[in-house]
Amino acid sequence: MSIPTAAILVIGDEILSGKTEDQNARLLIGELRELGVSLQRILVIPDDIDEVAAAARELSQKFDHVFTSGGVGPTHDDVTIKGIAMAFDAPIMRHPELERRVRNFMGEKVDESHLRMADVPEGSTLIEGPEIRWPILACRNVYILPGVPEHFRRKFLAIRERFRAEPYFTRIIYTLQDEFDIAEDLRSVADAHPLASIGSYPSFSSTEYKVKLTIESKNGEALEAAAAAIMEILSEESFVRSE
Amino acid sequence: MSIPTAAILVIGDEILSGKTEDQNARLLIGELRELGVSLQRILVIPDDIDEVAAAARELSQKFDHVFTSGGVGPTHDDVTIKGIAMAFDAPIMRHPELERRVRNFMGEKVDESHLRMADVPEGSTLIEGPEIRWPILACRNVYILPGVPEHFRRKFLAIRERFRAEPYFTRIIYTLQDEFDIAEDLRSVADAHPLASIGSYPSFSSTEYKVKLTIESKNGEALEAAAAAIMEILSEESFVRSE
Repeated sequence: MSIPTAAILVIGDEILSGKTEDQNARLLIGELRELGVSLQRILVIPDDIDEVAAAARELSQKFDHVFTSGGVGPTHDDVTIKGIAMAFDAPIMRHPELERRVRNFMGEKVDESHLRMADVPEGSTLIEGPEIRWPILACRNVYILPGVPEHFRRKFLAIRERFRAEPYFTRIIYTLQDEFDIAEDLRSVADAHPLASIGSYPSFSSTEYKVKLTIESKNGEALEAAAAAIMEILSEESFVRSE
Repeated sequence: MSIPTAAILVIGDEILSGKTEDQNARLLIGELRELGVSLQRILVIPDDIDEVAAAARELSQKFDHVFTSGGVGPTHDDVTIKGIAMAFDAPIMRHPELERRVRNFMGEKVDESHLRMADVPEGSTLIEGPEIRWPILACRNVYILPGVPEHFRRKFLAIRERFRAEPYFTRIIYTLQDEFDIAEDLRSVADAHPLASIGSYPSFSSTEYKVKLTIESKNGEALEAAAAAIMEILSEESFVRSE
């Protein structure tokens, strides 16, 4: 059972400078999880062609799916298409179908700045969806999504089901034990249960528990076995609850 | 005038899987801006030694300051120290001053899992601060901060003034013009004012404006010149306001 992996590439000076708060990566984190896709990387970079090219190339090679956010408008700071074309050594071409749509939509007002929205890296695919008027552009395994959150969301939801995989199973155990006192035993459990991913998160503000232990797996039996092994190393009187 | 650059490296499966929402990168975005430091990269990676090593090495070479968040506790999923040691080919050593403090604090209860908190990459520096009981660890230009938001915040605030640089000047202009209609002129202005960074952000939901133009510079005169040039290309009747 191989787990599909993903990366999010956010392109935007406005995020790095704090002028705009990211909403798109935040949305995708939850969506990808629910889809059973393993998000392995979030990368936020400036509006710079070379940076986009280098990041898109690397992420595209390392992960199954890459989602970009931002940089797809008509102005000088929109460099995503050029950067992705450069990533794959693909020339930019004016896509006939997109050009037809731009001309249809704009009528006689159409000018070069509108037509530039039909420019894509050669070899790109257009993905149509029921709820979207403008197709989503994919270049190899890179899905190019807009930065405006309403548009990003609508477009991602239009293609999300193509990424669905086996779901994750999750268990959370809360204990009043100190993280230092369980660290050694926890390491043994983690080593003995490689199919389960075990996380340990101390809280310094909760009065209910000291450590939150998370167990995750794509395999229900592996999850149960790891959870049982963790219950064995915890002292009964420190157990708070599990969910 | 060279502008100091920075990167944020968030180490945490819990962020990528959506179990915890990032607060630390969000805090630093605003703090670094206010300090006049140019944030160039945010990278979120899993709890994996090799990933930490590769990311820390690259970011440390490319940027002036690197801030890591997370992965510094006593459990198996805390791999930041090992990863950063690997990044710089530095052996891990038990720091005598940290060991002294751990022993002082824990008294007779002290054990190996506590003492491991005194393990650092050789060549690390300890930075003390008035409001913090435990020093901040820096390895070259990499500042190692904890993932728990209250601790991250307190520790960063204790060292923030060492990063202060020339402030940014910012102007925002709102217009009712369409982004397509100003794209060409805006590109000319951007080309002619390289000391100012100009951003163009359309809104599809605001009734007040269609495009928000942002101008930023470390140079007050360059900012004024770029802002004046933008006002010239905008039609007077479409101008909404500037701030």
